[in-house]
Amino acid sequence: MISAPVLPPCITRETFEQAVAEFREIAGAENVIVELDRLAPYTKIMIPDEDAWHQPACVVAPVSVVEIQAILRICNRDHIPLWTISTGRNFGYGTAAAATPGQTILDLRRMNRILEVDAEMGTALVEPGVSYTALHDYLEARNIPFWLSFPSSGALTGPVGNTLDRGIGYNRYGEHMAHFCGMEVVLADGSVVRTGMGGVEGSNSWQCYRWGYGPWTDGLFTQSNFGIVTKLGLWLMAKPPAHKTFGVGWDDAEDMAAGIDAARRLRLQGTIETFCMGNALSGIGSVIRRAGIWSGQGAIPDDVIADFCRARGVSLWGATATLYGTTGQIAVNLALCREAFLATRGHFVTEDDFPVDRPSPLTPEINRTTGQLDLSAFGIYNFRGGGGSAWFGPVLPMRGSDALKSIALAKPIFAAFGFDFIGSLTMGYSGRHIDHIMDLLFDRTDAAETDRAHACFTSLVETFAAAGYAPYRTNIGFMTKVAEIYGPAQQGLNRRLKRALDPNGILAPGKSGIF
Amino acid sequence: MISAPVLPPCITRETFEQAVAEFREIAGAENVIVELDRLAPYTKIMIPDEDAWHQPACVVAPVSVVEIQAILRICNRDHIPLWTISTGRNFGYGTAAAATPGQTILDLRRMNRILEVDAEMGTALVEPGVSYTALHDYLEARNIPFWLSFPSSGALTGPVGNTLDRGIGYNRYGEHMAHFCGMEVVLADGSVVRTGMGGVEGSNSWQCYRWGYGPWTDGLFTQSNFGIVTKLGLWLMAKPPAHKTFGVGWDDAEDMAAGIDAARRLRLQGTIETFCMGNALSGIGSVIRRAGIWSGQGAIPDDVIADFCRARGVSLWGATATLYGTTGQIAVNLALCREAFLATRGHFVTEDDFPVDRPSPLTPEINRTTGQLDLSAFGIYNFRGGGGSAWFGPVLPMRGSDALKSIALAKPIFAAFGFDFIGSLTMGYSGRHIDHIMDLLFDRTDAAETDRAHACFTSLVETFAAAGYAPYRTNIGFMTKVAEIYGPAQQGLNRRLKRALDPNGILAPGKSGIF
Repeated sequence: MISAPVLPPCITRETFEQAVAEFREIAGAENVIVELDRLAPYTKIMIPDEDAWHQPACVVAPVSVVEIQAILRICNRDHIPLWTISTGRNFGYGTAAAATPGQTILDLRRMNRILEVDAEMGTALVEPGVSYTALHDYLEARNIPFWLSFPSSGALTGPVGNTLDRGIGYNRYGEHMAHFCGMEVVLADGSVVRTGMGGVEGSNSWQCYRWGYGPWTDGLFTQSNFGIVTKLGLWLMAKPPAHKTFGVGWDDAEDMAAGIDAARRLRLQGTIETFCMGNALSGIGSVIRRAGIWSGQGAIPDDVIADFCRARGVSLWGATATLYGTTGQIAVNLALCREAFLATRGHFVTEDDFPVDRPSPLTPEINRTTGQLDLSAFGIYNFRGGGGSAWFGPVLPMRGSDALKSIALAKPIFAAFGFDFIGSLTMGYSGRHIDHIMDLLFDRTDAAETDRAHACFTSLVETFAAAGYAPYRTNIGFMTKVAEIYGPAQQGLNRRLKRALDPNGILAPGKSGIF
Repeated sequence: MISAPVLPPCITRETFEQAVAEFREIAGAENVIVELDRLAPYTKIMIPDEDAWHQPACVVAPVSVVEIQAILRICNRDHIPLWTISTGRNFGYGTAAAATPGQTILDLRRMNRILEVDAEMGTALVEPGVSYTALHDYLEARNIPFWLSFPSSGALTGPVGNTLDRGIGYNRYGEHMAHFCGMEVVLADGSVVRTGMGGVEGSNSWQCYRWGYGPWTDGLFTQSNFGIVTKLGLWLMAKPPAHKTFGVGWDDAEDMAAGIDAARRLRLQGTIETFCMGNALSGIGSVIRRAGIWSGQGAIPDDVIADFCRARGVSLWGATATLYGTTGQIAVNLALCREAFLATRGHFVTEDDFPVDRPSPLTPEINRTTGQLDLSAFGIYNFRGGGGSAWFGPVLPMRGSDALKSIALAKPIFAAFGFDFIGSLTMGYSGRHIDHIMDLLFDRTDAAETDRAHACFTSLVETFAAAGYAPYRTNIGFMTKVAEIYGPAQQGLNRRLKRALDPNGILAPGKSGIF
C-alpha cells in the first residue's frame, strides 16, 4: 500500500511537475499517470519487499520511437530516472515496478504492432507491447504454420519483455536468449540503432542472421539498462507433422538425479529438445489447495507430501518432454527415451496412456510445448494464497549431482523459514545447464510472514553464492545483491558501459544492479 | 615484399626502441621480433593489397596474462597499436597481418594450454594459442567421446581465433558464435574480466551456461578490438553412435534453389543439422588443376565446366550433409531427406553408394562433420596457384531465390574481371541464413592481376551492398568499407564502446572498421 506520492530523487516538485506537463504534451494526457489510485497497477508487487521501495513517481506510455526520444530529452535535462516495461507482468521478479523508488515507468504497452511475420522463414518482428496472445492469434488467423515459445505466464505477457529479461519457454526454442534475432534500440541520447543486418540498407536478413558484422551488441541490451529496445526479431518454431509428450516419474531422489544425467545425454545426442523436471509440489500445487494437504505450522512435512502422492499415484519427482517430427521420427526417438529413463528406474508414460477426451497430467506440458497458451501453471498462486511470490533461479550444470546438491541446499532453508519447497529444473538448449527455479510463496497480507520471506530469500541467495551457484535472473529487490555475486570485474565493466551509453544515468537505475 | 621497417604512427624511433627493449624484458628477447626477415611470416598476406599497408612494426609473443598486462602498460603509455592474433592463419581474410601498418602483433601462440575438458558435459576451456590439432589429439588420447567443429583450415588454425572472428565449421555446432561459452578478457587498461558464470567464485558452470547475469558482454569481444580474449569456453559435439553422410547433386540452378528451400524446411523441422552447397568448381577445384580444364583467357566458360562435369559424372551444384544418431534415427531421417531432395530433381547419394575401402567424393564431408581434421578443401589453393586468395562472404536468408540472386550478382563480376566463380553456401544453425562464401583466387605474383582482384573484390562488396547483402566477415583491407555498409548508427555505437573500453585506442585499430 502506498499513501503518498514520491518524486524522482534530488528533483524539486516544480521541476517534476513541469516535466510531467511535457510528458502529457508528448504522449497525450491520458497516457501519463501521476495519481496514486491510477498508479496502483504499477505498484502491486508480489515480492517480499516494501511497496514504497519500488513506488513510481509517474507512468508515461508513448506510442512511438519519436515520443520516446522526446521523453528522453526531458529525462536527460532533468535527470529523471526511467524504468522501461513492456507488458509489466514480471510477477515473481517484480511485476511492473522499478528497482528504486521515484522512477518514471516507461510503459511500452501501446507500442503493440506486429511489424512483420515471415511465414516461410518462421520469423517475426514485433514491438514491446505485443503480447504472446496477440502474436498467437495473428499466426492462427493466418494459418501460419509456426508456434511461439513462451513462459508459464505466456497468456499474460509478451515476447519482448520476456526475452530481454532472459525468460525461458518450453519448446525447441525455449531458451529465448538464443532465439531472438535483431533489435532496434533507442539509446539514452535518443539515437536509434538497428543491430545486426538491420543496419544494412535494403537488407532482407535482419531476422535471419543474428550476428551482423563487428562486435555483437544485442546482448548488451538484455537484463540491462543500456538502452530501450523498441523492436525485436523472433524465431518461431515450425509446426511439426506430429508431436508426442511423455512423462517420467521417480520416487527416489538418486533415481531422479540419474534421470537428469540421462536427459543430458539424450539432449547432447539430439534425441530430445525439451526437458523440465519438478518436485511433486510444483506439479500438484497448481491443481490443489494447500489446505487440502496440511493445516499445521511451517512447511508441509515430507511424509505428508509422500502420503498424499502415494494415495494419488503421483511421483515425488516428475519430468516431461515433447518429441517433434513425423510419426516415424517420434517412434524411434520415443523408444530411445523410454529405454534411457527406464534404466533410471523411472515410471514412463506418454500421452497415449491417458484418455484423449479429457485433460491428463500431461496436458499442461502438451500445451506449452505446442504453442497453446495455457495458464495452468499459474494455478500455483491459488495453492497457498496471499499474493506473495518470489522466484529464485540459480543456474546449475545439467548434472544429477548438481541437482541433488541444489535441492539439498534449498530445502532446509525453505523449511527453516516455514515455507514449502516448490521447484522445477528446466534444461537449456545445449543440454548443459538447468535453471532451478523455486517459487517462494507467502502471504503478502501478513507483514511478519513477508519479512520472513525476505529473510528466506536472502538466505537462499547467500547460501547458494557460498556454494558457487548464482541466479540467472532476480527480482527488483535483490538486483544489486546478485550483481555482487558475479564479482567486481563484471560490475566494473558494466559501469563503464553504462557511463558510455547513458552518461546521465537516466535509464532504469538499479536494473541488474547497474547504476 | 617489404624492404624497410615501419614504426607505429606518430612515434619516434627512440620511443619505439625503448618500448621494444621493455617488451624483451617482459616476454623474453626471443619472443620479440623486429628484424625484417623474421617478420616475414607475419607479412605474408594472400589478399589483393599492398604488403606495406599491413606491415607490422614488431611482434611480441607473451605467455601469460601478466605479461599481456605489462605489454599493455607500455602500449598505453606510448600509444603503440597492438593487433592480436592467435594462430595467425586467417588466410583469405588477412593471415597474421594487421589492418593498418606499424602495429605491433600480439602473437598469443605461446598461450597454448588446454585448461580443462569436461568429458561428461562436453566442454573445454582453452587459451588462444591452442590449435584444433592439439585439442583433437587431447580428446583422442583420452578417449573423450566428443568431436570438435572446425573450419576448412582447421588442421592449421585454432578455436579461439576462429570463434572470435565468427568462423564456421560443419558439424552440429558449426556456427561457432552460437556454441562458445564463457571468456576471460583482458581490457586495454589491463583489468581482467571473466564473463558469465566465470565471475562467480567457486562456480562450476562457467562453460555450461552462456548468459550469466546482467548484460551479456561476450559478444562485444567478437570481431572487435575491445579487449584481448585470453581464455574461451567451447562446447564439443557428443560423438553419436553412428553417422551417415549424403550428397545431393543438381544440374539445373532452379532445382538447386528448390534444394535450398527443402534443406531449410528439413532444418526447421529438426531433421538435418548440417548442410553445405557449392558450385562444381568449389568441389572439383580442390582436387584438380585449373590448367587441366582451361588454358584460355579469363574465367573458365560455363560450357567448358559443364562439359568437364558431364564427362566425369559431376553435378553442377552439389550439397552434402551428415546425419547423426543411432542407425534407427539415421534411417528414418535419411528417408525424409531422400524424399525431400528427390522432389527437387536432385541426384541423391549416400556414403553407402561408394566403396568403403577408398576415398569417395563424400570423404571430405565425412571427415569435417565427424571431427576428423582434413585439409582437403585447401586443395583449392593448388587449383589456380599464385598464392592470392580473398574470401567474400555475404549473408543471405536461407532461401533458394536469394541464393540464385546472389549467384546472379556475383558471377558476372568475377567474369568481368577475368576470375573464376567458386562459391559455397553453408547453412547457419537455425536454418534461416546461409553464408555464401566465394573464394577469389588470383596470382599474387602478378601485380596487374592483383590490382584486378582488388577491383573485383571492391565491385563485389559494392554491388552486394546496393542489393542489401553484406558480408558476415571480411579481410583486413576492406574492414572499414564493410563497416560503412552496416551504417552510421552501428559505427557510432561501436565508437562509443571503443572510447569507453580503450580510450587510448591501442587495441587493433581498424579491426572491423573501428578506430
